[in-house]
This record gives sequence, C-alpha cells and structure tokens, in this order.
Amino acid sequence: MRHILSSVFNCSVSISKSFKRTAIQIRFSHSVPKWGSNKLHRKIKIQHPFREIIMADPKIEEILAPLRANVKEQGDFVRKLKEEKAPELDIKKAVAELKVRKKTLEDKELSLAPTEEWFDRAKMEDLIKRRFFYDQSFAIYGGITGQFDFGPMGCALKSNMIQLWRKYFILQEQMLEVDCSILTPEPVLKASGHVERFADLMTKDVKSGECFRLDHLIKAHLEKIKSEKNTKPELKAEIEDILVKLDGMTADDMSSLMKRFNMKSPVSGNDLSPPIEFNLMFNTQIGPSGLVKGFLRPETAQGIFVNFKRLLEFNQGRLPFAAAQIGNSFRNEISPRSGLLRVREFTMCEIEHFCDTKDHPKFDSVKDTQMLFYSADNQEQGKAAEIMTIGEAVSKGIVNNETLGYFMARIHLYMLAVGIEPKKLRFRQHMSNEMAHYACDCWDAECLSSYGWIECVGCADRSAYDLTQHTKATGTRLAAEKKLPAPKQIDVVEAVTNKAAIGKQFKKDAKAINDALLALGSSELEQLESKLESCGEYTLVTANGDFTLTSDLISVKKTQKTVHVEEIIPSVIEPSFGIGRILYCILEHNFKLREGDEQRTYFSLPPSVAPMKCAVLPLSGNAEFQPFVRELSQELTAVDVSHKVDDSSGSIGRRYARTDELGVPYAVTVDFDTVPEPHTVTLRERDGMGQVRLLLSDVPQVVRDLSNSKISWSNVEEKYPKFEQQETVKGVAA
Amino acid sequence: MRHILSSVFNCSVSISKSFKRTAIQIRFSHSVPKWGSNKLHRKIKIQHPFREIIMADPKIEEILAPLRANVKEQGDFVRKLKEEKAPELDIKKAVAELKVRKKTLEDKELSLAPTEEWFDRAKMEDLIKRRFFYDQSFAIYGGITGQFDFGPMGCALKSNMIQLWRKYFILQEQMLEVDCSILTPEPVLKASGHVERFADLMTKDVKSGECFRLDHLIKAHLEKIKSEKNTKPELKAEIEDILVKLDGMTADDMSSLMKRFNMKSPVSGNDLSPPIEFNLMFNTQIGPSGLVKGFLRPETAQGIFVNFKRLLEFNQGRLPFAAAQIGNSFRNEISPRSGLLRVREFTMCEIEHFCDTKDHPKFDSVKDTQMLFYSADNQEQGKAAEIMTIGEAVSKGIVNNETLGYFMARIHLYMLAVGIEPKKLRFRQHMSNEMAHYACDCWDAECLSSYGWIECVGCADRSAYDLTQHTKATGTRLAAEKKLPAPKQIDVVEAVTNKAAIGKQFKKDAKAINDALLALGSSELEQLESKLESCGEYTLVTANGDFTLTSDLISVKKTQKTVHVEEIIPSVIEPSFGIGRILYCILEHNFKLREGDEQRTYFSLPPSVAPMKCAVLPLSGNAEFQPFVRELSQELTAVDVSHKVDDSSGSIGRRYARTDELGVPYAVTVDFDTVPEPHTVTLRERDGMGQVRLLLSDVPQVVRDLSNSKISWSNVEEKYPKFEQQETVKGVAA
Repeated sequence: MRHILSSVFNCSVSISKSFKRTAIQIRFSHSVPKWGSNKLHRKIKIQHPFREIIMADPKIEEILAPLRANVKEQGDFVRKLKEEKAPELDIKKAVAELKVRKKTLEDKELSLAPTEEWFDRAKMEDLIKRRFFYDQSFAIYGGITGQFDFGPMGCALKSNMIQLWRKYFILQEQMLEVDCSILTPEPVLKASGHVERFADLMTKDVKSGECFRLDHLIKAHLEKIKSEKNTKPELKAEIEDILVKLDGMTADDMSSLMKRFNMKSPVSGNDLSPPIEFNLMFNTQIGPSGLVKGFLRPETAQGIFVNFKRLLEFNQGRLPFAAAQIGNSFRNEISPRSGLLRVREFTMCEIEHFCDTKDHPKFDSVKDTQMLFYSADNQEQGKAAEIMTIGEAVSKGIVNNETLGYFMARIHLYMLAVGIEPKKLRFRQHMSNEMAHYACDCWDAECLSSYGWIECVGCADRSAYDLTQHTKATGTRLAAEKKLPAPKQIDVVEAVTNKAAIGKQFKKDAKAINDALLALGSSELEQLESKLESCGEYTLVTANGDFTLTSDLISVKKTQKTVHVEEIIPSVIEPSFGIGRILYCILEHNFKLREGDEQRTYFSLPPSVAPMKCAVLPLSGNAEFQPFVRELSQELTAVDVSHKVDDSSGSIGRRYARTDELGVPYAVTVDFDTVPEPHTVTLRERDGMGQVRLLLSDVPQVVRDLSNSKISWSNVEEKYPKFEQQETVKGVAA
Repeated sequence: MRHILSSVFNCSVSISKSFKRTAIQIRFSHSVPKWGSNKLHRKIKIQHPFREIIMADPKIEEILAPLRANVKEQGDFVRKLKEEKAPELDIKKAVAELKVRKKTLEDKELSLAPTEEWFDRAKMEDLIKRRFFYDQSFAIYGGITGQFDFGPMGCALKSNMIQLWRKYFILQEQMLEVDCSILTPEPVLKASGHVERFADLMTKDVKSGECFRLDHLIKAHLEKIKSEKNTKPELKAEIEDILVKLDGMTADDMSSLMKRFNMKSPVSGNDLSPPIEFNLMFNTQIGPSGLVKGFLRPETAQGIFVNFKRLLEFNQGRLPFAAAQIGNSFRNEISPRSGLLRVREFTMCEIEHFCDTKDHPKFDSVKDTQMLFYSADNQEQGKAAEIMTIGEAVSKGIVNNETLGYFMARIHLYMLAVGIEPKKLRFRQHMSNEMAHYACDCWDAECLSSYGWIECVGCADRSAYDLTQHTKATGTRLAAEKKLPAPKQIDVVEAVTNKAAIGKQFKKDAKAINDALLALGSSELEQLESKLESCGEYTLVTANGDFTLTSDLISVKKTQKTVHVEEIIPSVIEPSFGIGRILYCILEHNFKLREGDEQRTYFSLPPSVAPMKCAVLPLSGNAEFQPFVRELSQELTAVDVSHKVDDSSGSIGRRYARTDELGVPYAVTVDFDTVPEPHTVTLRERDGMGQVRLLLSDVPQVVRDLSNSKISWSNVEEKYPKFEQQETVKGVAA
C-alpha cells in the first residue's frame, strides 16, 4: 500500500544564500519540470536507485559508457600512483581529478534516471511544524540555528526508534549498555585526537566578528558568479571544477581562492580574515576554579573506551564482546543547515564491538540478506552500486570480514524495520582518502533524501587505535588476555628500574616515568636497550614531558618465560547511528499524499515506531459514547498501547485525516452500534483506509498484536467483517 | 522474603575531611556500637520511621515531650511575628532558632529509636564497583568528582526505571512528552531567574585559586574545633548552634565567621578570599563567533515552558494538559560529594501539569493511598510525621488541592513499584523560608538512606511564575483561552499607537517597544493612561532598555466588547524526579545479606526494574547442554526477556551468588535431566532461593509473566513441583 501514489506533480526548491540561516522555500507547481530553467530554482527529483540493477536500460548505458570509462581510467591511474608510492601531492591531485569525473558520471546518471515520484519538502515541513513533530528550539526568543526541540510526536517516534534499537542490538546480541558522562576532561579528547583534529575551516568578518564556514562561503560565492549572465563559459567550467574539488582542499588552497575571487563578507561586505581552524567541540570549565578544561563529548564512543577494563572484567575477561551507548553528543557547527541533518546537539546510538578474530558465529543467520553495495572499487572504476547478498560480498572480499558484514546486515534490517525504503538505502564504502583519522575501513549506510544521499549510520573498523591511544596517555594497559592453545616459551623483555634513584632524581615526575615505562611495547624496549648500549641514555616520552634516563637508572632484562596467555589489544568494529538523521529520512520516505486529494497528506510510519498506535474517536459528543471511550482507553493502557482519545468536535473524516497526519496506524470509532450489546466498534487502518467491525473487547489485543507485528492487517481483514459505512440509521437518534 | 535478615552487625563510617574529594571509608566490625566513642567515626543506623505512629512508646514520648514543646513554642512565635508583619530580619532570626530546636528534637528522636537493622555502606559500595553498576568517570585519567559512568547493570536498572516511569506517567496520563535542547541561550535563563539566583557561595585560595564551597568549609572547620580536646564546653555549644544556623546564613554572616575563627585553606594553609557568589550553571559559547552565550540547562523544565504555545495548540487549545521530559541536566557543583546524591550531570524526569482549576478527575482512584506526611505545620509544631490517606490529607487542607494530591499519590506508587521501601519514604512539605524562587507550595518525596532523608522527587506548585516571566521577556503571550459559560460584556483597555511615528523615532527598537506594549496587562495600561494624562509621557520597560513614549505616539482606548472566552495563564504543578538519587536509594533499600553468610550479599530488586530478568546456567561445560542453552536464550530473546548466559567454569552455587549480586531475580539451570525428553530445567527465585522443575518450553512465558508482575512466585510454586537437589545421580557421567 505504500506506493499507491500515481499523481505526478512538480516542485522546485530555492535555497536562499543567507549564511546566518539557511532558509529553504519550496515552490509547488503543476507545470512540467524544466531543468535548469531558473538559476535560483533546483528541482528535487527522487530516482529509483536500483534501476541499473533491476532493469539496466541499454540506451542509458550507451550514454553513460564513455563517462564510466573516464572514471575508470583515472581510477586506474590513482591505483598505479599508489602502487608506485608516488609523492603524496601527486596522488592527492589525481584523486581530486577522480572525484570530478565521478561527480560528472553520477550527475548524468541521476539526470537520465526515469522519474518515479515527486516529493514536496515544503508540504512535509509544514506538517512537521504544524503537528509539532519537531521545531526550532527557543523560537520565542528568536531561536538558535542547529537546535531543535522534539514535540510529542517526534519525541515518541524517536523514543520508539531507540527502544527498537535496544531490542535489535542490545537485547538480541546481549551487548553491555553503558551510560557515560557528557562532560569530558581535555586529556581524554587529546588522546583520542579530537582536540587536535576535530576542526573545520572558517573565516571571520574582520569588523563584526561574524563567522562563516569557509567551504560554504566559497561555494556560495562561486555559484553566484557561475549563475551570472555575463560569466564566460570557460570560467563557468573552471568554477564547476573548483566546486567538485572543494572538499579536499587545504587552508592554503582556499586562501588563494578567497584572494583570487576577492571574497568579502556576504552580509556586511567587510573584509574577511585568512582561514582559521575552528575546533567543533563546545568547551566549558568543570568545577569552580576554571582550571579544569572540559568539552561536551563530540561522540559517545570515548566513554566506552575509557571503561574498557571494567567492561572486559564484567565480561569475565573474555573476547569478543560489544558495548553500546545511547546518548547525546555535541558539535559546535560553524553554520548548521538542512534541518535535522546538521545540528549542534544530537542523539547517537553507538556500538563498540571488541574482538580478536573477525569471523562471527551468527554470520550464517544473516548471510542471505540482499543489500545495495557501493564499494570504493566501484566508485573508482566508474561502476554503479550493486545488489548482492552480504554472504556474497564477504566471500568476494568486497566487505572485509564476517563481523563487519554481520553488523552491516543488522544495520540494514534495523533500517527497514523503522521504515526506511529498501530502494533508498545503500552501503557506500569510504575511499581511502576520506576516512576519519581513527578508521582503517568504513562503510556508511546512506539514505536517499531530497538532500541527496545522506550518511545515517557509519560502520567503521577503528582497529586498535583508541585503546592504544588511551594506553599511551594513561599508562593503563587497555588490553585483554587470551588463553593460548598450548603453553609456550617466550622471550620476555622488560625494563628494570632503580626506583629509589628515579624517585630521588625526578620526584613528582617519577610516577609519569614509571607509567610510561610500563606502557612500552617490546619493540620500544629493544630500542631502549640499543640506545643505552650505544649512548648510555634514553629519552623517554611521558605525559609530563620528555626525560632522559641514564643506564644507572634503568636496564633491560631478557628472560625466557612459560606463558599460558597472550596479551592482545582488541580490534574495534564501530556501528554508529545518527538517530536524528534516520528519523528525518523515515519521515521523508513515509510522507504520502492521498490519491486524488493532494491536500491530504500523511505519514505511513510502521506501527512499531509510529508515535501512537491507535486513536479512539467517538462519532460525536453524545454522552452515551463516553463510558465506551473511557473503557477502551483503560484497556489499551493496560496492555501498554499508546493512544490518543480525540473527542473534539470535528467530523469523523476530519479527525481521521488528523490521525493520519500524525502517522497513527489504527483508529477505533465508537458509534451508535456500540451502545447496545454486543458492543462493537470499527477499526480502521491508515494506509489502505479499510475498516472492519469487531467486538470492543477484542480491540486492545488486536491493536497490540498489530503494533508488535504479530499479526498483519490482512489477518484482521480475514477474521472480521468489512465495514462499509460510518453512520448508521440510528444516527439521527442523537 | 525481603526482611529475613536477622543477624545484627555493626559498622562505622569515617568521613575524611579532604575538600578535593570526599573519601568515605566504612569500617566493618562485630562489636556492640558505642555512640560517640570515636570522634572520627559516626555510626550509620537506620531506624523505623513509622515507629511513632505504629507503636508510640510512652517512655520515649516522655523524654521527647519537653523538646516538642520547645519547638512548638518557637513555631507559635514565628507565626505570631508573621501575622504581625514584623520586620523580615526578626522573622529570619526566629526561624533560625526554630530550626535549631527542630534539629535537637529530630536528633533525639533518631537516637532513641529502636535499632531495626544495620546497613553496611562499604560492603554495598564494593559490590556496586565490583559488578560495575556505576563508577567514577574517566578513572584511568584520574577522574573528576561528581561524574559517574553507569556500567551494564546500572544502565539497565536506570533504563528500566525510566521505561516504567514512561508507562506510569506518560502512557497512563496521556502526557505530551518532549525532548528539548540542552544548550540554552542566556536570555531564556535570565527570564527564569537562573542567571541571577542559581548560585552557591564559595571562597578561593588567594594563591592557588583552589575553590571551596563556603558552607562546607565552615562546617568542617568548626567541627574540627568542636572535636578538639581542649575546646571549652561553652564554645562547643556555640559551635553546635552555628552549625544548625549555617543553612540560612548570608554572605556577610559567613564572612564574619571566617574572620572570627581565622579560617585558611584546609589544603595549603593560604589565605582565603571573601565569599563569592558562584553560579552553578556550566557556560559555553554557541556558534563560532563567541558572541552567543549559552548554558547547559540546570533543569529540563524551561524547555517545556518555552514550547507552551506549541503544546497548547497540539492539545487543541484545551486545558488541563501535562507535558513531560526525560533528559540530562547539569550543575557545576563547587564540591560534589555523597556519590550519586550530588553530581554534576544527572538524569531528570520532569512533568509540567498546566491547569486552570485544581480539582482532578482521577483523584478518586488514588484517594485511599496511605502515605507518610511531614507537613510544614507539624515541623513547626514539633510534631512527628503522620500516616494518613491522601484523601484525608486533601480534605483536611494539609495538601492544598486534588491535583497536587493526585500527583503525590502517583509519585508514591511509582516509588514503591521501583523498589523503595514504604517505611523509608515520606513526603515533607517545604517551610515557607526554604521554597525555591519560583514555588508557592512544595512537597518533597524523601527517602531514608545512610546519608539521612534524601530529597528524591520534588512536587512544586510553580503557579504562573515561569509562563509570566517568559511572556514578559519575549512579548509572546503564553496564555490559554477558556470558553466562558455565557458570553459577557467587558471593558477593554488597549494601547493605540502611532506605528509610523514610533518606527521613525525609535527605528530598530520599534519592535521591542511594540512587543512590550502588547505584553502589558490591564492594570499597567491603566497606569499608562494616568501617566499620559498627568505628565504627557510614559516610561516603557522593554527587552532593549527603557523608552519614553509621549502622548503623540500613544493613547489608551477603552471600549466595551462581548467576549466568549477569557484568557488565562495556567498554573503549573511540577513533579520533578532525580533518577540517580532514586536509583541510589533503591540500591540501599534492596541491599541484603544471606542469613548466616555475611559474605553473600545481593540486591533484592523488583523484577520490573532488575537489570536482567533471568540467568541461564548450564550445570557444567558438558557439550550436551549447549543446544538447550542456545534454544533457551533464543526463546527468551523472542519474548523480550533480558538475560545473561553464564557458562563460565564456576560451581553452580558460585554462579547463583554472582547472579544474586547483579540483582537478577530468576535463574534457569540446564542439567543432565534436561537432556532426555521431556526436556526440563530448574527455575530458581533469588530472594527465597526456592526452586521448581518445569518444561524448558514453559520457561520463557513464565519468566516474562513473573517479570511483568502478571504472576507471582507463589503461583509458580503452586503450579510446578519443588526441586530439592541440584545435581542428579547422572552428574558423575560428566
């Protein structure tokens, strides 16, 4: 029932270039869309992403062939440079060119795709606002960009998504859920790399101090030039090229662009500062002295890593295990935009799966799951995304290992369960040049929306990066022990220290020195030994700075030892869900118009996540109905079915329309036939608007089973008689 | 089964006086407690708070009678002063004296109460840490006081408490749940009064900058003097008097004390600064310019108030309705202490019930709930707390109205459902001098713990304070319309402005002026009119400052109008739950020792909130058991029963002990009798340790029904045969 929409309508979007707030207006029209007919209006068009696979059109493929070849040629070139270990700058340039060609191909693909349906973002945003799914925070105070408050419907949808997530992951996989502090002291985020690297480039109005995100500013400035009538075609082409490369540009590159195109503040016309690195973390002071610097966490992951030892112990020292956290994270975006897609505070659900081997005992249970893969290889070779089973993807080496594959399949299944359209969901592998600083492989679950393909879940292999970093910073070894199949003799290298002498010489730094020595790996100890031999001293890097240790303070002892366990720093697979982004995509994918009535819109949300499961509607204000309404409400509450009694004065049709807008899947109507025994009511399903007549006392169980997907609507239609007319003859008795 | 504990043991607590961190060590001993035998050790003793009511001991009452009379005398005096509208300073002094007398009475009461049971906090804290219910955040980095991470068990307990809360309040009362931003811009918290008033007094080490909460510092300093041998009895008595009055002292009072007793930093011995007001909100900058000052919210309530209009509209303009929010709040405590009881970030569940009348349609359903009330009146009159039904309390006027009473009863029922002991729960009314700046009546649900009576839920009548404040600050009228029983003629007073002239004269401030004019009430308009008449001008207070308006710009028009609705700013009843504090009290109230084995401790948590519902234990590592363990785990997952498979090598007894420590209420054991058909297992209940034998296939449903309180353990014992011995004869076959 979810694709009954056949009326085709058009809409166009205008993106205002104000940098203080991104105002998006969508104009609704019934004319045939003309692409590029208005420089300020871009058409929103959603295509069928599976088209290439399901039914590759030979005519289209003919057009795309040279573009695909173009990408492949450059992809091969990049690969060759990498194999030859060419200078980094050369590789970077080649990759930028690869991206240009890739973009050209993908744009062409989108433009040639058969139009399947039209989506009206303005209409949906109006409904979201009007029924308070969510809206801008502190609006009566003028509001702040990038902050949203979830109203009753949005909050319930979000909370249902999270409950389902908990069931899907924590309960089914017996994960260890934790709930850690948001306020994080600086040293933790220094070790994780966030203090140094978690930044965007910005520029400041030298007079007013107003800030702009530099890539956004450059993009807007160049697009404006490009759209001007008297701009020469060569310059237009060059600008297009620059725009594609913008993502990978350095501060210097952007600085030259600013000079070359004489960029000023788009608000005041004042001069702009050179590029500034702006760290995206919110900072504050913990405690009253102002001496303990802290940040609001930018991700929930670090809370899990710093608790690794406690969690390992809770799991009785055994690997693998997974820990999970649901909570808010904060990023001080320079210029947030695109509604819920780029915000300053957001709810994440993160899993850190710690493992020593990457096969997975439950992989078999998901191996036949069909998914859409867009591998780095396909991206580099100009090929389209491909549908295959996750089993195939792992066995072909497209997905690196079973554990990563298992989580990708589980992510896929969760996304479908909460209402993401299967054909608008793909897994895209990061190309090597776009990986985060901690990742060694990464697949994003992306959803197609009117903003394009949106990253909603990241699934990264963080290897041992974080545990190693925190071990280095604290001297606490974050490692597990694994029993060997048989005991073995090993060479043990350890530092033997003269504790008294170290204490005497280094006083308060002695602890940091001992911590750092304990954290040294065997290769570092080998180095220490050879340094002591060659120069009689060794420079040790510690949390308190560098210290020179002489051979009277330290020596290296090598012995043989029988060991029964080996120490391993586990690898980490991290699926990380952005709940707000998924929620937005769910709303887009489920926003529907009633056939033949474009004014009646609704959300076809799956019952499991719908904000409320059921509406209870008395046909009119007749006092005779009230006891039945009350009874129903109590019985529904008793079986935990969230519902809403709507006894307002609107006609029954108007009230159905209202519950449809809220995405409520079922509605029960109490009417004159309810009053005499046997007490019966009608039950209506939102998407198909079919109605059945059943005993009032049956309703709570039926709605509960429908909501938990224990039965389907067709089961209900088979069991109960169809109901055709709402008002009965007795209606006049009121 | 929850009070089988009969062995009496003693413990003593030492509170180290370090101000950087409050280190509490509890010593465990088997000697008879000697009160006051050691100046550094205070006995922890929990008494039966209902004793006065259940069985008032005439001997004890004889001792207490003069102390009660003392309190009453002073209470009457305070009342008289208030009636006579005596100077505020006189009332303040009299209230301080009242508090001294009240404290003396309450201390005596506690010391005379029959000892009922002993509680060992150190043992409990050890278990909480060892099984990672919660622990200090960032411990491997040295940790930060006042921040805690919840491990798998604490997190599950907390999440179950919240789920039950959602069911109890949001679902049952059909409240509107919202989820608002944590980062809050300054003007919002200026309007609410937090920027000005949400502060504690502190003092700084003038050299190191280290900060101390002033009342804590004075208390520790004076207690030290008091405990010294050569301190004279008169000084000791005076210090006792000061300590009791400390709570109500001003900055000047405390400053004099610092001078008189020559207080220095307890850490460095350096001089201290005069008292400084320290605002408890964490501040940060929103956006990159550093120009938008923001705070981490100190309560979730304001998010609801600023969304009032949207919520009212969602409720189709009708009163009453309640909105609720579950989320984190932040307070930058100067020196956090007492574990989870005073922390820097914490989860709250808050309800704002907006109403125009204070009767409640569902009050009848709770009116027979028996609760313990400690009214302001009883506190002032030296009387003990009293048990009565909420119906009685409301009809006697002890509790002001039905709505307040309804929520208090619901709070009471929720607290019992999550595992608070009924006899350790009381409702204490705030005396008029301890109310928060926004409240006009307030009852706290307090739980008795080893730290004394702890405020866990506040239930305040905030009247129209917040909505009025935000209306004033924004010019947006946060009010509802109520249909009148019949239309009526009213006098309308409104400001008529010359918009063009105002725009011309005040330019960018014109909007603020118009907003402020719209927000004026009728009495203010009357004033405006008379001012214009008398002096030809009026000074208007706006968000942008004060402006003088002359009579050519503005006039007042009076007309008669027929109205069908009246505008009302609703009152607000606010139940506000501190989840961490309740969680801590639940753990204390459910911490038990096995009779005859003091080393075996466990948490008797109610199944509804227990972190996991069930443990699955194979008797040994025998491979034959594995398929049954796997099947059970899958079946339990299918009916959403959280569980843990413990197939580690410990004996079955040791593994039972471990699940008991985690508070898991049920354990299923797979043994040799499980293997042949019919496949049966044992099911064990934690508190009584009784076991039954049942079909493996029955287990999931039985455990689910037990966890949802659909059936009780005695139902299970009636239905299934008792199981007496764990190992069968075949056991040797392994």
